[in-house]
Amino acid sequence: MPDFEALRRDYVRLLIREGVRLQPGQRLVLSAAVDQADIARACAEEAYNAGCREVIMNWSDDALTRMRFLRAESDVFDTCAPWRSLLYNSLAEEGAAWLFLDSDDPENLKGVDPDRIRRSQVASGKAVKTFRMLETSNGFPWCIAAVPSPAWARLVFPDLEETAAVARLWEEIFKAARCTRGQAVADWRAHSDTLQKRVAILNEYNFKSLHYQNALGTDLTVELPEGHFWAGGAEKCTKNGVEFSANIPTEEVFTLPRRDGVNGTVVASKPLALNGNIIEGLRFTLCGGKIVSLSARRGEDILRNATEVDEGASYFGEVALVPYDSPISNSGVLFYSTLFDENASCHFAFGDAYPCIRGADGMDEDALLSMGVNQSITHVDFMVGTADLSITGTTHDGRVVPVFVNGNFAF
Amino acid sequence: MPDFEALRRDYVRLLIREGVRLQPGQRLVLSAAVDQADIARACAEEAYNAGCREVIMNWSDDALTRMRFLRAESDVFDTCAPWRSLLYNSLAEEGAAWLFLDSDDPENLKGVDPDRIRRSQVASGKAVKTFRMLETSNGFPWCIAAVPSPAWARLVFPDLEETAAVARLWEEIFKAARCTRGQAVADWRAHSDTLQKRVAILNEYNFKSLHYQNALGTDLTVELPEGHFWAGGAEKCTKNGVEFSANIPTEEVFTLPRRDGVNGTVVASKPLALNGNIIEGLRFTLCGGKIVSLSARRGEDILRNATEVDEGASYFGEVALVPYDSPISNSGVLFYSTLFDENASCHFAFGDAYPCIRGADGMDEDALLSMGVNQSITHVDFMVGTADLSITGTTHDGRVVPVFVNGNFAF
Repeated sequence: MPDFEALRRDYVRLLIREGVRLQPGQRLVLSAAVDQADIARACAEEAYNAGCREVIMNWSDDALTRMRFLRAESDVFDTCAPWRSLLYNSLAEEGAAWLFLDSDDPENLKGVDPDRIRRSQVASGKAVKTFRMLETSNGFPWCIAAVPSPAWARLVFPDLEETAAVARLWEEIFKAARCTRGQAVADWRAHSDTLQKRVAILNEYNFKSLHYQNALGTDLTVELPEGHFWAGGAEKCTKNGVEFSANIPTEEVFTLPRRDGVNGTVVASKPLALNGNIIEGLRFTLCGGKIVSLSARRGEDILRNATEVDEGASYFGEVALVPYDSPISNSGVLFYSTLFDENASCHFAFGDAYPCIRGADGMDEDALLSMGVNQSITHVDFMVGTADLSITGTTHDGRVVPVFVNGNFAF
Repeated sequence: MPDFEALRRDYVRLLIREGVRLQPGQRLVLSAAVDQADIARACAEEAYNAGCREVIMNWSDDALTRMRFLRAESDVFDTCAPWRSLLYNSLAEEGAAWLFLDSDDPENLKGVDPDRIRRSQVASGKAVKTFRMLETSNGFPWCIAAVPSPAWARLVFPDLEETAAVARLWEEIFKAARCTRGQAVADWRAHSDTLQKRVAILNEYNFKSLHYQNALGTDLTVELPEGHFWAGGAEKCTKNGVEFSANIPTEEVFTLPRRDGVNGTVVASKPLALNGNIIEGLRFTLCGGKIVSLSARRGEDILRNATEVDEGASYFGEVALVPYDSPISNSGVLFYSTLFDENASCHFAFGDAYPCIRGADGMDEDALLSMGVNQSITHVDFMVGTADLSITGTTHDGRVVPVFVNGNFAF
């Protein structure tokens, strides 16, 4: 097995060459925590090796983010600075590649007034609407990938001391990214092909609805809209036609539910790191697509606020299938990071829907809504997979097909 | 003497409470290197203690700045992103306080194509013109202060190992900032009062011209424009009426030369850190205010480019008096940082003039030019003080008065 430095170089190469698949002459926007400057510099170096036009840094810092949420004047959370929306929207419109190195402490905003978080999301949601719209419709190549921070590593491995916890988290990140043999790009592409085979089978069935059931209490019917398609693995940027990998790691194949077609009860199977807080024991009841009641053992106020940022936040926007026997799930590690935990488990999202529907390109919001595509400034994944999860699909001609049996694909 | 942590707390307090003198409800823009996140967080904390509305971070990184200058596509240096000019100009217009924590490696851009640096300065000079104009006219409170980086500390103390060099540089910074007794704000105000007494004497003389001479080869006559005044120590923000200290440290009293009234030869007495490069042996000859020839033993191309960014860059914009026996000078340390070295020595600047002239408020560029106020997108200080420097002043009624004798004030 290559040594740590070699693995890290291979990982950086994977993010630039396969994650955003940076093209010569293209700008790279790199979001990173100031404490992760080393790997940010390595990513920038690799981007320039790939012919990058210019690397634009978008730095953040957990401590200063938390301090602002706790101590700034309250009304600053109702607006987003015009320069910030211009930064996001103009670079998105240009088709710059966006690499998000996520190292946030999942509990960074613990204790912060949930209303400040909600108002901040509403304000930035409006301000960077163009950016979000282009992101969900693949108008620019983007990739979210993880880098361990000490705070995150300590939360995931509370029994290890800090250095060991960080090293262990790196190890899990490398494994999940197929970055173990010194040929991460090739190994990732092979993995991406596997996902695309699952996509082909699901698209062939073209299910009308899916019915989820398990002993945890989930009993939910999810209708899929006319013209929906499943996606997974590499996606194609509509601006430059190049395939990119929006999430590293990813194990999911996904589509969207019909906005008004979700009914029943769903219970989360894992904690959810949401807006710098941890939510445990999430339970939603939906009627005609809308969340009509919710509860959580921990973080219920944060969860409630998150479903109330706008009308669409209380409807579902994603249906994703991940086998219970997936590599991240089998690691037995709870990452408190959606990027990992959603890829260890079947999940849904409330909020904005990826427009996985034929003919959606260029449609306005009203037209998308009328096709059953939910619209929101937010999009929050939560995990529902269990070892006993069963999912049955019903086709348009009335056939009932097992999709998941005992937590894994039936085919 | 207080311990290091106590001194650092006192220094942070000095920067927030006296440097920008942050007022309740005011935003703070904090420019810092990502490697200096610790002290940036401490400054933000102190700002919120003072009632700050919101801290906006403006992060930088020497390594990524250098990489961009070396590797980005050439034409990116001809423009400045609109979001960046909006960031600077809108916050300047709002009257936000700006704190610049300077820790740059003075040689960070060594080997970079000087034309890229020049074009980048021209582009950002145009893009943040409103910001610069408000900065030089005290339209918002601002403060430049130093924080040691390992690269800078190693350059200043090449015989010490890194940790010791950084500790030693902190010590010099604390001394220069009067931050040694745990009461930096009070001690700084006393120092500022001393400077204001010198200002009063010089304003009383109201010199028509100054004549500089020393054995190094300086023989220069500098005419001062009608209505000029000397300044030094605290300055008053025109937006909120609050006094602030734009430079910590500062030892200078300064005014502006008449744009077309500088004649003779001037030789620098110290190296100059300019745009990430070090210039040694700088020599200018001026005629009718304009630099008509220049040379340097080291970095001549960088220097030449700097005087050619626009028309005003080849005229002088500042005349500053600092005794040879000043604390920074007596430390015997060459800092390779203008913030320090200019305060160890009499200096001039080429480029933009601070409008230290009565009636200048609200005047447009043409009116200022006609009063002898130089205009440029750049402003570069360079040091001319020596142990044998003599300066004689000539008053409007023809009296010849010694101002500096053997490098120090004659009064």
